[in-house]
Amino acid sequence: MKRTEITELYSKTAELSGKAVTVCGWVRTIRDSKALGFIDLNDGSCFKGVQIVFEANRISNFTEVTKLNVGSALVVTGELVLTPQAKQPFEIHADKIEAEGLSSPDYPLQKKRHSLEFLRTIAHLRPRTNTFSAAFRVRSAAAFAIHKFFHENGFVYVHTPLITGSDCEGAGEMFTVTTLDAENPPRKKDGTVDYSQDFFQKHTSLTVSGQLEAECMAMAFGKVYTFGPTFRAEKSYTQRHAAEFWMIEPEIAFADLQDNMKLAEAMMKYVIKYVMDTCPDDIAFFNQFIDKGLVDRLTNVVNSDFACVTYTEAIEILKKNNDKFEYKVSWGSDLQTEHEKYLTEQVFGKPVFVTDYPKEIKAFYMRLNDDGKTVAAVDLLVPGIGEIIGGSQREERIEILQQRMKEFKLNEENYWWYLDLRRYGGTKHAGYGLGFERLVMYLTGIANIRDVLPFPRTTGTAEF
Amino acid sequence: MKRTEITELYSKTAELSGKAVTVCGWVRTIRDSKALGFIDLNDGSCFKGVQIVFEANRISNFTEVTKLNVGSALVVTGELVLTPQAKQPFEIHADKIEAEGLSSPDYPLQKKRHSLEFLRTIAHLRPRTNTFSAAFRVRSAAAFAIHKFFHENGFVYVHTPLITGSDCEGAGEMFTVTTLDAENPPRKKDGTVDYSQDFFQKHTSLTVSGQLEAECMAMAFGKVYTFGPTFRAEKSYTQRHAAEFWMIEPEIAFADLQDNMKLAEAMMKYVIKYVMDTCPDDIAFFNQFIDKGLVDRLTNVVNSDFACVTYTEAIEILKKNNDKFEYKVSWGSDLQTEHEKYLTEQVFGKPVFVTDYPKEIKAFYMRLNDDGKTVAAVDLLVPGIGEIIGGSQREERIEILQQRMKEFKLNEENYWWYLDLRRYGGTKHAGYGLGFERLVMYLTGIANIRDVLPFPRTTGTAEF
Repeated sequence: MKRTEITELYSKTAELSGKAVTVCGWVRTIRDSKALGFIDLNDGSCFKGVQIVFEANRISNFTEVTKLNVGSALVVTGELVLTPQAKQPFEIHADKIEAEGLSSPDYPLQKKRHSLEFLRTIAHLRPRTNTFSAAFRVRSAAAFAIHKFFHENGFVYVHTPLITGSDCEGAGEMFTVTTLDAENPPRKKDGTVDYSQDFFQKHTSLTVSGQLEAECMAMAFGKVYTFGPTFRAEKSYTQRHAAEFWMIEPEIAFADLQDNMKLAEAMMKYVIKYVMDTCPDDIAFFNQFIDKGLVDRLTNVVNSDFACVTYTEAIEILKKNNDKFEYKVSWGSDLQTEHEKYLTEQVFGKPVFVTDYPKEIKAFYMRLNDDGKTVAAVDLLVPGIGEIIGGSQREERIEILQQRMKEFKLNEENYWWYLDLRRYGGTKHAGYGLGFERLVMYLTGIANIRDVLPFPRTTGTAEF
Repeated sequence: MKRTEITELYSKTAELSGKAVTVCGWVRTIRDSKALGFIDLNDGSCFKGVQIVFEANRISNFTEVTKLNVGSALVVTGELVLTPQAKQPFEIHADKIEAEGLSSPDYPLQKKRHSLEFLRTIAHLRPRTNTFSAAFRVRSAAAFAIHKFFHENGFVYVHTPLITGSDCEGAGEMFTVTTLDAENPPRKKDGTVDYSQDFFQKHTSLTVSGQLEAECMAMAFGKVYTFGPTFRAEKSYTQRHAAEFWMIEPEIAFADLQDNMKLAEAMMKYVIKYVMDTCPDDIAFFNQFIDKGLVDRLTNVVNSDFACVTYTEAIEILKKNNDKFEYKVSWGSDLQTEHEKYLTEQVFGKPVFVTDYPKEIKAFYMRLNDDGKTVAAVDLLVPGIGEIIGGSQREERIEILQQRMKEFKLNEENYWWYLDLRRYGGTKHAGYGLGFERLVMYLTGIANIRDVLPFPRTTGTAEF
């Protein structure tokens, strides 16, 4: 049996017209009247399915086919017939329909609208719906676009470790990773748990960032990026936070904040364009059913030069509009989503970089500016979502870095290797982090992070 | 400053000849005599460095430059001069040398051979050596080749969760993931730890495989693959096992064991060819210094049709040679590396698939063959390493799957969603797992898994 995927039917319609093809897929809908029936068959190779027409006088098992339940897996052989008068460009007139796998009448995905909340409870089946089929296809395309962008630009992809003995940000709650017997762990003389008997002979956690390790690699390869899972153990029930998510962290040597921003802008435009080009049906679906402004917004991002404003300037703008905000801003306050969205949507009408934040609200490794008050940080804000990228130039001057670590109450001993990078041929360097799920939400208009992760892990939930 | 990467100097030599270029990189070696000096500068953009020639009468800071330590980061501007008589095709005659970052005299990577063991203790610096620069460049290229192969073939890339409430293999020791206070965890009335108060309201672990979740996705998209980290908490001090490693797991619907083998063979050849084509200098280095037979072996794999033998046939062959083995084989015994290597190296002289293993030594989800004794499993053995891929056709018949789960003492309730896949349009399907580090070892000839992971996590070790 030579199987043809449905995506090929669409890309090679003229060539296949009038020919016999075999397609394999799952029944989305099935209906029949007397001697004629129709099946909408989908195989996940593209957004669209194909209409199967089956007739009592053409297939031998007509009655059995009419009794098939939605969700059944079929192998269908038939003729591809052009249908220029119909909504779909062609259909398949079946000569043979085999049930590869039956489905029960209690199949949860019957033809009706299901709430996203309900579909989360059947995460193993929801990729068979239009919304999730499209979401995970876009997710896959976006992931590939990121790899493609960085490889075409000479970056080395590095796998930084997930199990870590240190805490990158010096903040952020972390999951403990252990093989100790929780019921009765080994204890030291003072009664505390003896982690020297744990698997790694010390206490370890799941990482919140691969940045520090990526910096090591950037000091050898010049341009590197990570793309891997990261973790946050903060209890959160928002639509934007998951306990396990994927992050992209490029790091570039001999580079400053300007280079960092150039890279981020080029990457964002590349990925958006790639996804719009390779998943037009999926994007059109989201534009029609999930987020009416999606295509316009994405197109605008690809075609606009991103704006750039300092934090201090941004605060001046926002202060004039403090009456519009729940949280009033003043110099020194962190920007909330409402402020970020106001800046990018109302003030600039396009993506905007905000640079040079107060050092108190940013991480220890960010490079101190000459004013002594701000650091060379940069966030990228985009319409519809707010912050999507956070980055900085890194502090390459060892004395200042050590001073900053003191201020953050970090133990230098744990960072000996990170400090070594400044002792042995350190260069100015910069990088940023892009939350991958946030990118997928941006590309699809999907509002809840639980709906862009195949099997989300959030506070209280690790099903499947 | 317009920076030119060293890889560009090699790809555009003719064009740049006689022109002024600016290169940024790190000093590998430096030497001088009176008014003339030479620096081997490397920027990690390719395996090779570039020779910088500096003269007292051409640069203003000659004396300072002669005092630079190995490892220093430099920005060098000078003329690219062809050197047809010399070993290297060109050199740069410096007009300006700026020290972007100094290095100390105690820089650990002085020009001499360092043991791999020593270099593991400075994993943050070792990517600056030839061996590790090449290893991680090959790793990056291989990762991209995998993504490229699957995307070109219409697979959807899926991120399966790392934190899990179930244990895929029903075996394999796992790391616990928790936010409970180890010193004083909440306890139930019976005194045992109360995981309902843990972050996910139950006991969770780090996954050993994304396969079961990938099967869900394959039943929607037809062809999917995972590429992500997996974990084993087994205490092991071998050269082949790490606690954290990356794995690729494709899963294909409407496919049997033969389709699975075709896919594995095509993927292996594609990835090897891609890496040989894109990293010729790195591979040549490994062939010269690490593993003399490397290029021949890889070329042989690309050009050969993989052999195929059943487990039962393989046992017959091996039994005749039992005198050669430490572990004697008989039908029912698991194959050890010595047997695997004998088969692929001595018997077949090329990669060989071994199929249809006894059901007792394989996982519960593998499809039971009609003989009732074996399952539709397949391992791919390659010369020099033994098993590199393990896969199977999956059991799609729910009654048999349930029976197998009973035999493995698995609790059906934990696998309700996995069983659902067989209730609702299940198809025959198959897949395999490729250990990514094992692939990189195979591509480089590097013998220890600690030397193909940037920051390895092994029993007792989670430094950096």
